[in-house]
Amino acid sequence: MTWFENVNKIKYEGPKSTNPFAFKFYNPHEKINGQTMEDILRFGVAYWHTFTEDLSDPFGAGTAIRNWDKYDGMDRAKARVEAAFEFFDKIGANYFCFHDVDIAPEGDTLRETNQNLDTIVTMMKDYMNDSGVKLLWNTANNFTNPRFVHGAASSSNADAFSYAAAKVKKQLEIGKELGGENYVFWGGREGYETLLNTDLKLEQDNLGRFFQMAVDYAKEIGHDAQFLIEPKPKEPTTHQYDFDTQSAHAFLLNYGLSDHFKFNIEANHATLAGHTFEHELRYARINNMLGSVDANQGDPLLGWDTDEFPADIYSTTLAMYEILKNGGLQPGGLNFDAKVRRGSFEQDDLFHAHIAGMDHFAVGLKVAHQLIEDQVFEKIIDDRYASFKEGIGKDIVEGKADFKSLEEHALRIKDVRNKSGRQEAIKATINQYLLNAYSDQ
Amino acid sequence: MTWFENVNKIKYEGPKSTNPFAFKFYNPHEKINGQTMEDILRFGVAYWHTFTEDLSDPFGAGTAIRNWDKYDGMDRAKARVEAAFEFFDKIGANYFCFHDVDIAPEGDTLRETNQNLDTIVTMMKDYMNDSGVKLLWNTANNFTNPRFVHGAASSSNADAFSYAAAKVKKQLEIGKELGGENYVFWGGREGYETLLNTDLKLEQDNLGRFFQMAVDYAKEIGHDAQFLIEPKPKEPTTHQYDFDTQSAHAFLLNYGLSDHFKFNIEANHATLAGHTFEHELRYARINNMLGSVDANQGDPLLGWDTDEFPADIYSTTLAMYEILKNGGLQPGGLNFDAKVRRGSFEQDDLFHAHIAGMDHFAVGLKVAHQLIEDQVFEKIIDDRYASFKEGIGKDIVEGKADFKSLEEHALRIKDVRNKSGRQEAIKATINQYLLNAYSDQ
Amino acid sequence: MTWFENVNKIKYEGPKSTNPFAFKFYNPHEKINGQTMEDILRFGVAYWHTFTEDLSDPFGAGTAIRNWDKYDGMDRAKARVEAAFEFFDKIGANYFCFHDVDIAPEGDTLRETNQNLDTIVTMMKDYMNDSGVKLLWNTANNFTNPRFVHGAASSSNADAFSYAAAKVKKQLEIGKELGGENYVFWGGREGYETLLNTDLKLEQDNLGRFFQMAVDYAKEIGHDAQFLIEPKPKEPTTHQYDFDTQSAHAFLLNYGLSDHFKFNIEANHATLAGHTFEHELRYARINNMLGSVDANQGDPLLGWDTDEFPADIYSTTLAMYEILKNGGLQPGGLNFDAKVRRGSFEQDDLFHAHIAGMDHFAVGLKVAHQLIEDQVFEKIIDDRYASFKEGIGKDIVEGKADFKSLEEHALRIKDVRNKSGRQEAIKATINQYLLNAYSDQ
Amino acid sequence: MTWFENVNKIKYEGPKSTNPFAFKFYNPHEKINGQTMEDILRFGVAYWHTFTEDLSDPFGAGTAIRNWDKYDGMDRAKARVEAAFEFFDKIGANYFCFHDVDIAPEGDTLRETNQNLDTIVTMMKDYMNDSGVKLLWNTANNFTNPRFVHGAASSSNADAFSYAAAKVKKQLEIGKELGGENYVFWGGREGYETLLNTDLKLEQDNLGRFFQMAVDYAKEIGHDAQFLIEPKPKEPTTHQYDFDTQSAHAFLLNYGLSDHFKFNIEANHATLAGHTFEHELRYARINNMLGSVDANQGDPLLGWDTDEFPADIYSTTLAMYEILKNGGLQPGGLNFDAKVRRGSFEQDDLFHAHIAGMDHFAVGLKVAHQLIEDQVFEKIIDDRYASFKEGIGKDIVEGKADFKSLEEHALRIKDVRNKSGRQEAIKATINQYLLNAYSDQ
Repeated sequence: MTWFENVNKIKYEGPKSTNPFAFKFYNPHEKINGQTMEDILRFGVAYWHTFTEDLSDPFGAGTAIRNWDKYDGMDRAKARVEAAFEFFDKIGANYFCFHDVDIAPEGDTLRETNQNLDTIVTMMKDYMNDSGVKLLWNTANNFTNPRFVHGAASSSNADAFSYAAAKVKKQLEIGKELGGENYVFWGGREGYETLLNTDLKLEQDNLGRFFQMAVDYAKEIGHDAQFLIEPKPKEPTTHQYDFDTQSAHAFLLNYGLSDHFKFNIEANHATLAGHTFEHELRYARINNMLGSVDANQGDPLLGWDTDEFPADIYSTTLAMYEILKNGGLQPGGLNFDAKVRRGSFEQDDLFHAHIAGMDHFAVGLKVAHQLIEDQVFEKIIDDRYASFKEGIGKDIVEGKADFKSLEEHALRIKDVRNKSGRQEAIKATINQYLLNAYSDQ
Repeated sequence: MTWFENVNKIKYEGPKSTNPFAFKFYNPHEKINGQTMEDILRFGVAYWHTFTEDLSDPFGAGTAIRNWDKYDGMDRAKARVEAAFEFFDKIGANYFCFHDVDIAPEGDTLRETNQNLDTIVTMMKDYMNDSGVKLLWNTANNFTNPRFVHGAASSSNADAFSYAAAKVKKQLEIGKELGGENYVFWGGREGYETLLNTDLKLEQDNLGRFFQMAVDYAKEIGHDAQFLIEPKPKEPTTHQYDFDTQSAHAFLLNYGLSDHFKFNIEANHATLAGHTFEHELRYARINNMLGSVDANQGDPLLGWDTDEFPADIYSTTLAMYEILKNGGLQPGGLNFDAKVRRGSFEQDDLFHAHIAGMDHFAVGLKVAHQLIEDQVFEKIIDDRYASFKEGIGKDIVEGKADFKSLEEHALRIKDVRNKSGRQEAIKATINQYLLNAYSDQ
Repeated sequence: MTWFENVNKIKYEGPKSTNPFAFKFYNPHEKINGQTMEDILRFGVAYWHTFTEDLSDPFGAGTAIRNWDKYDGMDRAKARVEAAFEFFDKIGANYFCFHDVDIAPEGDTLRETNQNLDTIVTMMKDYMNDSGVKLLWNTANNFTNPRFVHGAASSSNADAFSYAAAKVKKQLEIGKELGGENYVFWGGREGYETLLNTDLKLEQDNLGRFFQMAVDYAKEIGHDAQFLIEPKPKEPTTHQYDFDTQSAHAFLLNYGLSDHFKFNIEANHATLAGHTFEHELRYARINNMLGSVDANQGDPLLGWDTDEFPADIYSTTLAMYEILKNGGLQPGGLNFDAKVRRGSFEQDDLFHAHIAGMDHFAVGLKVAHQLIEDQVFEKIIDDRYASFKEGIGKDIVEGKADFKSLEEHALRIKDVRNKSGRQEAIKATINQYLLNAYSDQ
Repeated sequence: MTWFENVNKIKYEGPKSTNPFAFKFYNPHEKINGQTMEDILRFGVAYWHTFTEDLSDPFGAGTAIRNWDKYDGMDRAKARVEAAFEFFDKIGANYFCFHDVDIAPEGDTLRETNQNLDTIVTMMKDYMNDSGVKLLWNTANNFTNPRFVHGAASSSNADAFSYAAAKVKKQLEIGKELGGENYVFWGGREGYETLLNTDLKLEQDNLGRFFQMAVDYAKEIGHDAQFLIEPKPKEPTTHQYDFDTQSAHAFLLNYGLSDHFKFNIEANHATLAGHTFEHELRYARINNMLGSVDANQGDPLLGWDTDEFPADIYSTTLAMYEILKNGGLQPGGLNFDAKVRRGSFEQDDLFHAHIAGMDHFAVGLKVAHQLIEDQVFEKIIDDRYASFKEGIGKDIVEGKADFKSLEEHALRIKDVRNKSGRQEAIKATINQYLLNAYSDQ
């Protein structure tokens, strides 16, 4: 049986292939520095966007045509599992990610919801064993249901807090059951609509308590997944507490949680916060907090989360540079938290989009690798900061300088001589690397 | 002698006065809760915007007509001191703030620059003694001079770092000499133009080292001013390290500096970072980091720092609410980091603008005080978060709950019942407070 | 029978009332310049936000609690009519507005949809006759249904174009039947997702053809409603053709349609396009194209259409200034295209929100009227542009100057002397008018 | 004599060259469709950014190191001419552009200013004759001088209007003298700071009168340059009247000027207005109004005009696609209205930046040409809009349909069937074209 009858297993056909159902750049078994592309890239499929999303928007009903939508309830949930593992196989993804509500419908009670989850998890486990596909991360959706209208861990309502806790508890258990390698918190309702009715201190304290309880419970049940926080500045709320990586870092430091968490960084969330994707990755990397990536992209002219499939090879190149410098992402990976456009409503588009996303990260990997091989940025940095390797600069870095010794130095120099930062030339170099990447193949 | 011949000392004439050179709302000696308005508001005049600014913009030469511009060099600097203290007296400001380069011209050498500063500081000290006007804060301008093209404390050049250190050292000494109550760091070049040539880790480490040296040197010379960091997300650089209050908090926590610093929060910088002014104030307040305020406002439709005089009484009311809840700002204050528009180039506009700014904060103070007297927001919060004062909510807050007890609770409740957040009604209430504020006078 | 049992008819209780179910500023029968407030303001209720909206958002299911949701299909549609007219009566609204899909469910076929509409229209007509409430405008929703995924009048699919035409035809007939005073086009899908697959010329030509057909058909059936275009720059699409008022004006001029249309200007759409509300109103006014207003407000820090109830009295004052200078809006009005926040999910919030919106426009009306009575802006303008009333300025305005006569003049003057624009003082004056507005009552 | 001693004439060395002073992609004499690259691209150097700009910003003094800055006044102006024509020769630019104030200093009187201009123009004319370099366009800077603080053609002051007219008159004469192929209006002060003191109608009417006088005077003196309007939404003012291409089109249509003007479209101005560069080009193209291009790019995360050299090959490709479909730009061209970053302050950076910009447009040209050769977008469009070539679609396009015939059609079809827009696949195709562009060389 097949859910995607138009499409066979996707193969690599090289950069000049015109087959829309082939990889042009992503060659899973090609080795870069002794590792295969697939082992470096660790692509994950997002269950919600690919199997649950109906492509509705605030002004329009769903347009997606999905073969499993002829079923309802648990039947649909089961059909989705079948479709998902067929998709993983055909696209060649080794990982997937889900929220609880993506995989099984909520029941009338929490108990019934958990039973629904158990049924699907049992089914998934078999498919995982058969296929070798692994769970990159799971999470609890504590934002869609109206009970979370005022937040979950930061709700004004203790019952909502409790319900959210119960849902995360269940997901930690499922994560353990399925060998989930990470566990993600995205606080879609952890923020405020208006400061005018918000007890900011209590909400943040409660959020800190909630995270600590999650850490404690995971330890108690022996689930050693990496905890990840996924920052986003706003949408759906007016202000979300995990605004960006550095803000969320402040939160973790402030509440003594920084040893237990890393970040799951999403490109589109970065741009909504006013940052480049690579900035967020860099900040996390140099603070040893880069855990995993939600691979997508936004539209810089639009003020909401468009969650597009990655199409910008500048961005994938600079992202892969940070990831390679990080020594990879494991146990994290590159999860396509991306949805096809509302106008791309056919099932084939799911393949086109994933092929594109995987190809574009493969390009990024290859170019970033070459940039590192040639030490392009490293040489620039070495030269630019050379003054900190000797004399007064070395004293500064080694903690031997103080304002008095620095003033003495400053009084001696006539004035400061700087060198050009050469930004235009550097950008031209990146273009050359991109445009030459496939010239010898 | 007078520098502002059109204008006498500004007096309070009440809300119906049509005199453009009178306060309509700011009555300095009126008492609110036992304190005078002037003691609560602690208004400061920004030397740079009011006495140095020429109202040029990136597409236009300066338009400002200033009587002291007939002089040059140190003569102009001295004339500015005279004009400044006449202005402080006429407008009724008790504080002022400056950067080194605002008060004295840079010489050919650092030594000469420092001599220029000493001359002016001696003169200022006399004026301060005579007038009772105090120094709210001073700072070193480590961003205008081309030597700081690649940053100051985060420069790629150790000489620039040294020069910046020498300048801050001098300002700490001057701050001590003049009894400065705070010392501000605004890192206008502490950031990057492009990540492509930037060693983010080294730059941030160096910035941490620089701040520590400042703390050490102030201690050494016995200058006990409050250190303040003024966050701004970008402009002039592409990304500034003190992006917003929470990001800068992360920095301070990360580098062990959080006990030595509070924040100087600027309204326009908040909006450039994607936050409301009151959000930044609230975040600082609940973390005991609210030190001082740069009172201005931006234009939400423009993407740069317009530094307008505060004209929005919603904003001044919500700001004063945070300030009153903070127990005031002392030793900080409300510094008008605001400039008249390029089209408001006459000297009279300096008075109109400060009168307006002071009046609008006086309105904010009065309305915020009444809101607190009536416990408007406090009652909303008490009611909204009542569930955390008993039962499972109390357990959560007191650290007695864990995921298991919370799940038990969640399994028992049928579903979560929430109450409306009443945002529309709350906003209408604020309008009523504003519109009633002067109805009995 | 009642659908809103908590609430009686809303009355005016004056600015100091603490009754959340009372007007504080809107006194419908109070006269301003010989006209009653209600006759000037012509408030309309938006059927979709108040009776159909479930308060879902892209990350959350609907939260609204509505008594009519116990019914389904046509029963719900009928219950909504009852509720709507009870609401109009209690809130004191004289007008309402709807899209076809708001008032009756779509059937399996266009024919069945039209039958559903006919049933409801018949019912509505009785209610309108009984209550005296009038139809400000109606429109066809040509954006929600998946058939319009690629646009309606600008679709890539001629069938979608045809379907859209049939829907507008039906709404023109209904508008005639119900005495609708205007007919609105908001082109939620008339734009593009990506230019890469878009024939911009054909799409715009077809949009022009569609509007011409609507004009022709209205004439044919003798429906003399004012046609209105409602600009919005983006959302749901990446670029919408009616980007803002001036862009849409270009479109109308380009396609020879400008005599047949005016604009329905929405505050939140203005800010999404990078304009103030008052800018859009002013542009339309001076071009004799100001038709009607969608009264709401956005959040300048958020990049999507929040459609909040008007809460900013600066904005309502400047809007009412333009409206009064326009000689009012008739046959247009002030339609509350505004929804309660997702957290304001109780029926009572519908009243709080409308009371607030009506009150805030009443404040705006009163203050704007006083500003005009005192000729505040008019005197500023007269003084500022005085040079165009004599000499060379008069020649310019009267068409008697050319580059040669102007050069002669320029060579004679030493240099240009300008006067301050006094922006800070003007803003302070507006605050005084606001804060004094209720001081004598 | 040389002003740029480090640099020889720039040559083409192919995509793998590592010489920073060589073209890698721009091969001026390479033919595309029978035309040379240089004849298609018509590159122009912007005098202001390259020879006058000091790289100051609102928070910093100029950093640029320029050999001609050792001179002052007219000597500097003459040195700049020498440097400019050496630069044009070395970089291989065939065109240049200037504002009056770029080439000669303003004198104490208009007469003296004009004499300064005459001296430089005479000198330039010789250099132009010797080198064959041509004037793409000139313009009057009616925004920098304080006399234009309230606008030029839209000033509140008739003297400012006159002065602006005299300056444009002189530039039209100079344009004729130097054989300028176009004349540009960028209205940097033609807008408002605040609507509160602005007579919008008078200002726009005056702007219309001014343009008409320019058209008349050019005709009178027989200068047949193409007039161009360069839209920009804001900065320096809060709102500029030529907000974007479509808005400016409205203005031209409204004032009967559309036959006399085309647009000079700048990439960064497009993004500041919320549009892509290609959108603005497309809109102008399909309305036969695409005249010339200011080739630069902005930073989508920054809210001001960064005027960076073009570095994004997606953008240059899509721009060149529009330009090729326009049949080229002649008499317009690609003017680098771009400045080196403040940190790129050495003279060498001027070469790096122009080489980069020319290379990136050469890439764009090559890829766009290939896309057109393969009819990539054309096939997509043909297929997508096929329904408008027969049946009801053909009737619509040919004006044979009306609402009644369309309703009949809509009633007959069961429902509308759409096809996927395939956005993800199309974007992947563009990446393939980019990455394959140099694979065979």
